[in-house]
Amino acid sequence: MAEEAETGFRSLSDLEEAAARSTRPDVWAYVQGGSGEERTLTANRAAFERLRLRPRMLRGIAEIDLRSQYLGQSVRVPWYIAPMAYQGDLCADGECATARAAANAGCLSIFSTLSSQSLEAIAEAAPWAPRWFQLYLQPELSGSLDLVHRAERAGYSAIVLTVDVPLLAVRDRQSTGGFAIDESRPLGNGPHVVPPARVPVAAQGRFHLRPPGSASWEVLDRLREATRLPLVVKGILRGDDAQRAVEHGARAVIVSNHGGRQLDGAVAAIDALPEVLTSVKGKAEVYVEGGVRRASDILAALALGANGVGIGRPVLWALLASGEPGVSQYLRLLTEELANVMALAGCRDVGDIGRDLLV
Amino acid sequence: MAEEAETGFRSLSDLEEAAARSTRPDVWAYVQGGSGEERTLTANRAAFERLRLRPRMLRGIAEIDLRSQYLGQSVRVPWYIAPMAYQGDLCADGECATARAAANAGCLSIFSTLSSQSLEAIAEAAPWAPRWFQLYLQPELSGSLDLVHRAERAGYSAIVLTVDVPLLAVRDRQSTGGFAIDESRPLGNGPHVVPPARVPVAAQGRFHLRPPGSASWEVLDRLREATRLPLVVKGILRGDDAQRAVEHGARAVIVSNHGGRQLDGAVAAIDALPEVLTSVKGKAEVYVEGGVRRASDILAALALGANGVGIGRPVLWALLASGEPGVSQYLRLLTEELANVMALAGCRDVGDIGRDLLV
Amino acid sequence: MAEEAETGFRSLSDLEEAAARSTRPDVWAYVQGGSGEERTLTANRAAFERLRLRPRMLRGIAEIDLRSQYLGQSVRVPWYIAPMAYQGDLCADGECATARAAANAGCLSIFSTLSSQSLEAIAEAAPWAPRWFQLYLQPELSGSLDLVHRAERAGYSAIVLTVDVPLLAVRDRQSTGGFAIDESRPLGNGPHVVPPARVPVAAQGRFHLRPPGSASWEVLDRLREATRLPLVVKGILRGDDAQRAVEHGARAVIVSNHGGRQLDGAVAAIDALPEVLTSVKGKAEVYVEGGVRRASDILAALALGANGVGIGRPVLWALLASGEPGVSQYLRLLTEELANVMALAGCRDVGDIGRDLLV
Amino acid sequence: MAEEAETGFRSLSDLEEAAARSTRPDVWAYVQGGSGEERTLTANRAAFERLRLRPRMLRGIAEIDLRSQYLGQSVRVPWYIAPMAYQGDLCADGECATARAAANAGCLSIFSTLSSQSLEAIAEAAPWAPRWFQLYLQPELSGSLDLVHRAERAGYSAIVLTVDVPLLAVRDRQSTGGFAIDESRPLGNGPHVVPPARVPVAAQGRFHLRPPGSASWEVLDRLREATRLPLVVKGILRGDDAQRAVEHGARAVIVSNHGGRQLDGAVAAIDALPEVLTSVKGKAEVYVEGGVRRASDILAALALGANGVGIGRPVLWALLASGEPGVSQYLRLLTEELANVMALAGCRDVGDIGRDLLV
Repeated sequence: MAEEAETGFRSLSDLEEAAARSTRPDVWAYVQGGSGEERTLTANRAAFERLRLRPRMLRGIAEIDLRSQYLGQSVRVPWYIAPMAYQGDLCADGECATARAAANAGCLSIFSTLSSQSLEAIAEAAPWAPRWFQLYLQPELSGSLDLVHRAERAGYSAIVLTVDVPLLAVRDRQSTGGFAIDESRPLGNGPHVVPPARVPVAAQGRFHLRPPGSASWEVLDRLREATRLPLVVKGILRGDDAQRAVEHGARAVIVSNHGGRQLDGAVAAIDALPEVLTSVKGKAEVYVEGGVRRASDILAALALGANGVGIGRPVLWALLASGEPGVSQYLRLLTEELANVMALAGCRDVGDIGRDLLV
Repeated sequence: MAEEAETGFRSLSDLEEAAARSTRPDVWAYVQGGSGEERTLTANRAAFERLRLRPRMLRGIAEIDLRSQYLGQSVRVPWYIAPMAYQGDLCADGECATARAAANAGCLSIFSTLSSQSLEAIAEAAPWAPRWFQLYLQPELSGSLDLVHRAERAGYSAIVLTVDVPLLAVRDRQSTGGFAIDESRPLGNGPHVVPPARVPVAAQGRFHLRPPGSASWEVLDRLREATRLPLVVKGILRGDDAQRAVEHGARAVIVSNHGGRQLDGAVAAIDALPEVLTSVKGKAEVYVEGGVRRASDILAALALGANGVGIGRPVLWALLASGEPGVSQYLRLLTEELANVMALAGCRDVGDIGRDLLV
Repeated sequence: MAEEAETGFRSLSDLEEAAARSTRPDVWAYVQGGSGEERTLTANRAAFERLRLRPRMLRGIAEIDLRSQYLGQSVRVPWYIAPMAYQGDLCADGECATARAAANAGCLSIFSTLSSQSLEAIAEAAPWAPRWFQLYLQPELSGSLDLVHRAERAGYSAIVLTVDVPLLAVRDRQSTGGFAIDESRPLGNGPHVVPPARVPVAAQGRFHLRPPGSASWEVLDRLREATRLPLVVKGILRGDDAQRAVEHGARAVIVSNHGGRQLDGAVAAIDALPEVLTSVKGKAEVYVEGGVRRASDILAALALGANGVGIGRPVLWALLASGEPGVSQYLRLLTEELANVMALAGCRDVGDIGRDLLV
Repeated sequence: MAEEAETGFRSLSDLEEAAARSTRPDVWAYVQGGSGEERTLTANRAAFERLRLRPRMLRGIAEIDLRSQYLGQSVRVPWYIAPMAYQGDLCADGECATARAAANAGCLSIFSTLSSQSLEAIAEAAPWAPRWFQLYLQPELSGSLDLVHRAERAGYSAIVLTVDVPLLAVRDRQSTGGFAIDESRPLGNGPHVVPPARVPVAAQGRFHLRPPGSASWEVLDRLREATRLPLVVKGILRGDDAQRAVEHGARAVIVSNHGGRQLDGAVAAIDALPEVLTSVKGKAEVYVEGGVRRASDILAALALGANGVGIGRPVLWALLASGEPGVSQYLRLLTEELANVMALAGCRDVGDIGRDLLV
């Protein structure tokens, strides 16, 4: 009960409602909404709910080991926190709260170009924790490289290039809900950082996509030349695109539809995973995000062959419910549930989670 | 907010509710209702919701081009406005409002035999806009030809023959809702124009279908002899019927179940499209209507191979919400959303939308 | 409006609600309820809702002919009214009301052993109408033969033996709803007529099924020997049972799960039809009942190959809503809708309804 | 009505609601809840609802015989009562009430290690009834063997080893509902009996599963050496695990996901049955539990090939609704319904229930 008094939730089942209770409706619409008719938002969850597990019994397991690796870097749990923008609009401490809670839990976090706090401040909040930097391409290559080099200097250990936002999708719940990012407040990474465009520029009935919306795969080559950090490509839903990413030097791809916030009608992330895995053939790591809520989802994604699994909205819920203590409690509950679920499924460690666990 | 004040809706998600709010219940029942138990009405939407898209990333697209062609005629967007009767019962300006808004948006419109305004008045409302004339066969061939020749003279560039209304279906929501076309008000195209019959005439237990309800494919030959305009056949749900239409000279067929308002239980339009495309083998253009609401639907229909996509009820909703400004805003929102969705899916232009975009 | 004033409903969509409004809750629970958890009751409807029609256009049809035949007997419409017991508990005039309305509509009716009125009285109510007698086997063969001979004398033209009621199923909605047949009132066919047993008789942990619950296929041979009337077997859901019926001389079988009122979990009637048709191979007529509500259902069942289609609950609803005028109006609306639907689907007559109409 | 006055329910459809009405919310959350998001809890029921039966008609059955055998032991009905803990928290008389009612109904009951009453007291409550003892492994083998030997002496005729609880799952509805086992009250089987651990013991980021959570298949060999009683393994969802159980001497396996209370996302029990049957190839008996509510479920499970079927929550509902009389009435209603359903499906006895009964 002490926990509930502090954070407003005692179990993973309580979390979403606790967050809703303590959040302004317009902010809630921003957090929860997807694009268009929210078909993909719904599909992400429905796809996980269709998966069925085949647990193994009496495997003589004395120790459950949750540790995993991301591009050779050791982490205490197999999931990571997906990059999410503007966390300062949800909680005063913003990304620093998330960073500290993640560091305590030992999990990898990816921080957005559009963080409310500077990437340097986030790094200082949890200096020893594993963290990656998510890059939204800037109009000029120099702008992108500037961010990359700052991330490099600040100890981020990979660059996660988001490719599914040539421009922002139409997000009706958010715009109708009335939420607007406070544009008078500068972005954490500085006033020169440019977020993705909202609508294409129309002229004579055609629509121009200026850079970075018009980028092509060659941009990966430019980034690779400019940094020693490994490159991860986020927002892939097809095998051929995954292959192109690998050909252009990506060390990992993230199968994602941006949490149902970009192309409405896009395939559920977990449903796209098998095609990407087949196409990549082990030449890069493959992670998946979108609709992951509970430890059983993580188990199922790993069983399908993912090398990592991203968590999105639940972290925002925890931030909204009670900031850093909320995220800490969420990560603790998820860690315990994953250990529990692995024990119930008969999985000693992450390597022991195989395709045979799924019907 | 200015927009909302004017039109009552700010996004495509708002439109239907905004229209409902400003419409008499009986008129709303007329607009929304389908036939029988409304299974086909429901199926039209459900079929689109099942389709899943596979967007392409980083394709280096600098310009999104929405322009398309209908039978060689250039239009600014790939959809058209489907023919819908009695628009004057929904908005004082009726079809002229639709015509002007469509002209500004650069999209093809098809106007019904049963328009509230004369085909000549509609043509004058937007003289340079692309428009086609929808024909309901008249009891006598001369009545049909008279309409065709008027359309020809008034600058309509194709005749769209509706074939799925040998008589009107039983539409309970409409009849129970109490809506009745004001029969004292003459049809826009003149008092001699005869709408489709409501029920067959029963005699001694059998039911006579008088012309035009008893028409056969040969009527296409008669129409072709009488006009230089290309002929489009609307209301096809089978490959064999599409083939017959082509054999009798149709330049295009529209896969449609009349928006769920004719045979209840009929297959969803988008589900019938592949069979028709296979059967037509490129010998005619193939369009599809029924259940199209958002840009993702348009993208999916084009990806399946349709040469064009019709929009129905949303245009009526926009008319009901606020007449011509409503339709203009709707078309602007849909245009922007389609540009957005094509950018997100990695489609440079309409020709770049392929079958690989669908799971 | 006059119609509504008289009968409480103006369309087929209104009928069920109109009936509910004018019926005591316990009687309504009796009419609407199924057995067990009502899975089969639900499945009957769901199976029809999954069927999708492929209408044919421009077939040059000048006359829609609804006439059909049942074992060589001409009727004006292709459906029949299924046997339903105790109609006198729903409407003062009971089966006589149904008989007169059916006679006016020209449709075949089947009357139950458990009618509230005597089979002779029902016959007199509509002397020239086609009617069949439904037989519940009696404990002694002589009891069954007595009913058969009375039906023969009273001009019934077939005997429909119900085989899916060795005893009555557990029907919780009915028993919980509190409806009880008034047992002080004698059955229409006389006090010696015995309805099916409610529960098996238990003794020492085993359950005895006394005749007629323990009957076997040989009973068909006994009935055939005793009457010149053709024998129809009602309540078949398997191909092998249909074959047995034919081998024992049945001229027709009715695919039925007793409207979801006997074995809960049994397959939907329309889903069992193809197997029965394949097995019977044209050696007997095959009808189907269960979940038929609208003309599209009738069209779909005939398209699957049924030789006839039974209507059940809607007739009771019409009786409840307003007795004979209700049934008359229901039959008139259904007749018009079927003519309408055949015209929309491009079907000249019943023989023109083929398998190609279904996806 | 007398029955309802006594027990609060008159039919199987009433039971759950009657129980809910007379139960404290926290206890109800404990009884009804599953683990995680309760996907498996839901899936158990949904899987039964998808099964469709093909009843056989006119099979000349004079007697329905419900008797069955469990490992050679005769019982009056083919189902058994699954082991369920802490029945004393639901009803003052606890497991003794269940035992007496089961004895009167002639059905096998399995009693839990975590019973509120001692296994000896339960045995004395119904000395001649068939009963098995469910074993939760104890930290030390001697603790397990002690329970086994007590069960042997008290006349239990099999040991049912539960293998799907290396530790308790996260059960949010229960923990949020506030129910807590009163730990001051000793377990029926004595203060030294240790229930399964709630969470794994964490140390330095890893999670230790101490015995019995870390047990392996060899524990079956130890149990077999220590008792003459046949061994049943409960909690199997895979063919390979079933095979291992048989190799280690199990005489029967129970396909079960612990009523949706252990691994959330696990396959529905009835969906896992075919794989287990195929793998066991008749070398052991195979039972199934999880989601069984009505006689049609029992029929379907037996038709799929199960040798026995377990009933869980409904027994708790009956206990909550009115203790021993409630369980007696429940078992009487279920017995009658099964006799009824077997008669309706044309099944003389349990051996007559075959795979042909399912679509």
